[in-house]
Amino acid sequence: MSEKKIPYKIYLEENEMPKAWYNMRADMKNKPAPLLNPGTLEPMKAEELAPVFCDELIKQELDDTTAYFEIPEEIREFYKMYRPSPLVRAYCLEKKLQTPAKIYYKFEGNNTSGSHKLNSAIAQAYYAKKQGLKGVTTETGAGQWGTALSMACSYFDLDCKVYMVKVSYEQKPFRREVMRTYGASVTPSPSMETEIGRKILAEHPGTTGSLGCAISEAVEKATKSEGYRYVLGSVLNQVLLHQSVIGLESKTALDKYGVKPDVIIGCAGGGSNLGGLISPFMGEKLRGEADYRIIAVEPASCPSFTRGKFAYDFCDTGMVCPLAKMYTLGCDFIPSANHAGGLRYHGMSSTLSQLYDDGLMEAVSVQQTDVFKAAEYFARIEGILPAPESAHAIKVAIDEAVKCRENNEEKTILFGLTGTGYFDMVAYEKFNDGVMSDNIPTDEEIAVSLAKLPRVDK
Amino acid sequence: MSEKKIPYKIYLEENEMPKAWYNMRADMKNKPAPLLNPGTLEPMKAEELAPVFCDELIKQELDDTTAYFEIPEEIREFYKMYRPSPLVRAYCLEKKLQTPAKIYYKFEGNNTSGSHKLNSAIAQAYYAKKQGLKGVTTETGAGQWGTALSMACSYFDLDCKVYMVKVSYEQKPFRREVMRTYGASVTPSPSMETEIGRKILAEHPGTTGSLGCAISEAVEKATKSEGYRYVLGSVLNQVLLHQSVIGLESKTALDKYGVKPDVIIGCAGGGSNLGGLISPFMGEKLRGEADYRIIAVEPASCPSFTRGKFAYDFCDTGMVCPLAKMYTLGCDFIPSANHAGGLRYHGMSSTLSQLYDDGLMEAVSVQQTDVFKAAEYFARIEGILPAPESAHAIKVAIDEAVKCRENNEEKTILFGLTGTGYFDMVAYEKFNDGVMSDNIPTDEEIAVSLAKLPRVDK
Repeated sequence: MSEKKIPYKIYLEENEMPKAWYNMRADMKNKPAPLLNPGTLEPMKAEELAPVFCDELIKQELDDTTAYFEIPEEIREFYKMYRPSPLVRAYCLEKKLQTPAKIYYKFEGNNTSGSHKLNSAIAQAYYAKKQGLKGVTTETGAGQWGTALSMACSYFDLDCKVYMVKVSYEQKPFRREVMRTYGASVTPSPSMETEIGRKILAEHPGTTGSLGCAISEAVEKATKSEGYRYVLGSVLNQVLLHQSVIGLESKTALDKYGVKPDVIIGCAGGGSNLGGLISPFMGEKLRGEADYRIIAVEPASCPSFTRGKFAYDFCDTGMVCPLAKMYTLGCDFIPSANHAGGLRYHGMSSTLSQLYDDGLMEAVSVQQTDVFKAAEYFARIEGILPAPESAHAIKVAIDEAVKCRENNEEKTILFGLTGTGYFDMVAYEKFNDGVMSDNIPTDEEIAVSLAKLPRVDK
Repeated sequence: MSEKKIPYKIYLEENEMPKAWYNMRADMKNKPAPLLNPGTLEPMKAEELAPVFCDELIKQELDDTTAYFEIPEEIREFYKMYRPSPLVRAYCLEKKLQTPAKIYYKFEGNNTSGSHKLNSAIAQAYYAKKQGLKGVTTETGAGQWGTALSMACSYFDLDCKVYMVKVSYEQKPFRREVMRTYGASVTPSPSMETEIGRKILAEHPGTTGSLGCAISEAVEKATKSEGYRYVLGSVLNQVLLHQSVIGLESKTALDKYGVKPDVIIGCAGGGSNLGGLISPFMGEKLRGEADYRIIAVEPASCPSFTRGKFAYDFCDTGMVCPLAKMYTLGCDFIPSANHAGGLRYHGMSSTLSQLYDDGLMEAVSVQQTDVFKAAEYFARIEGILPAPESAHAIKVAIDEAVKCRENNEEKTILFGLTGTGYFDMVAYEKFNDGVMSDNIPTDEEIAVSLAKLPRVDK
């Protein structure tokens, strides 16, 4: 193929930016299984979800036939403040690896939230505002989602209540201060503000909290406060829908230069980034228009795809949320220490789980120290210090590029660089000091957790 | 003027990026006064500077007649990794302020060093490599310069020794870890590695260090180590030369849309950012081709322009460096607590000092709490959490835009947004907690410090 000279960074013009999000589910023959009411085990209806989620977001969540949702003008205006994100040709990395492979990455870290999370945060805040709500509640662990939501709420003048896992609240004071600077109230969880929080504190006075507990507090606060709803930064279909902007921009940028990726790689925690990145490519694959090799990368310490089970499970540790059919390690699986906080989720997006089960994508797990080696290598060559989450994709992209060198294959690799590691320096310090370890769950640990899956005959 | 629709962000194409740096001094009628040998009080010659600085950089430092220096291909390639930086039209800020003013800012924070410092770091590292050196030494306070230099040295495979003011080393562990991740050795200063460090530690065992002491250690280390030179991130003419890339890109981007700024605003510590931003505009002004209002913004706690004296002074507290004629508060002036660490320099670039003395630019000082108010306001509206240094320019840009509203003037304002505040969250925390104060030196404090200026009859 005769290629135009490709710049280091491809920025779309404003008028080339996506005007609609793409919903992969519309093109899936095997639709993702519906959310179930944990009491009745019947599919959740919109009205059952309404006390928790915003109305418009529920429509998006349940709609598996509409292929495109128009991006409202107000959201597109906000996108223009920090998007289009650059699609980067990794010339320096290619040269250093001496690979014939062509490596591209879509870099979502150039905004103050430091990650792709802002793409969905602004959408969810918009629909909350449009519904006339006073505010939203959410939980945050590592803090990327909380930061993104704080920024979005500040823009639309919405109140934002973030329950931050207590251990993160104390160990990541800088993330907390970014949220506060954007006007959010940040509460260490468990807290005395909610019934569930008080109950947990009474039972476990010294607990440093968990994501599951923080979710439960945020949901309780939303349902018990007039004019509030709960919002979530990953896993849900609506989030993958909003994140499709990543893949749509990537595809438009590549199309401009006549480039077709052979391999697409993304890190996967709940699936928001990976689902967004692959959307339009998977769409072509589902419609039989093109083929791509798609690889999900997960931490070996929390290997939902590679060692979990495809089954109905609770989305939260507190077992108050609906059941979702997904690859899961069991909702009370506790991943061992891992510095990629955004990838420590026990389950996986239902949509991605179905696609994986249908053989439409692959998955691989990687070890923490290898991930940080790749992160440091990449930082020194490409000049961007990646988030530990993003470095999972970097690790596998480098592995694939090295294979291309060994086999002398001129493949085109696209990976998602979801964010920057500026608030993860404690992890980098451990790596720099040589005291980082790999902690992989035993088969028995996973078996114990999976044995507790709820019994659902679907 | 009939304007093309201006996007939120203007990115130049690679082929529009500057191919040469612009040297303002070439167009100045009153040249900046030369550096003086502190022993002989005679102008420093290239051979006297050679043990400390790289040869090519000395040429750039001393040359006040060549208008353009070609940017070497290797540096231009590196620039393409993180440049062009966006020129942003602050539509959201304009709307919020309800001002007829048109506000633009050149955003230099989208790289891992988090600031414009990388523009000169990569140039200095390149010339060090070209000279066949093993490595370079430097000092860092807040850490932006040290981080930038670490990245640049990593790219060219140069050793990088950073002396970090001990109090920053301890209070800013994250900056330190970024430098270490890029392979730099970071030593808290004063240290036992140098004679001056051992001397200071013997005299003041509990000292937390100072920038002046760190400079002295870095210079000693460079001159006493085979194959090393010392590099500096601001104040020097060579640094302003490299930073002209900021202004050149800004001007090219504005010219594409037929926009001419009326007011240009930048924060000023040692002058690297301001000098870079204004370069091509000041060039036109010096050549009588156009007129611009140019405003330097400095902290009220360290007001070199607005309350200092235009005189020869030592560039460092340790009095080992050459004398420079500049606006200075006296080389042992100790600014009171101020969270914009990059603006705490007692002096100012000789070039900017001369331009200011010639009435070609204005200066204004602003108080810390007002700066943080502006920073928070801007973050919430424009979505970028600014560095405290950069927020000085934001504060004055907002003030000017408000004046435009009051006078119903449709002026065009351009300011420099030098970097992000992600490593400054301790300062934001103080602001969020309402415990930040303004500390302004008394007239007497400044007089005491100025009374100690060296006597130079030039």
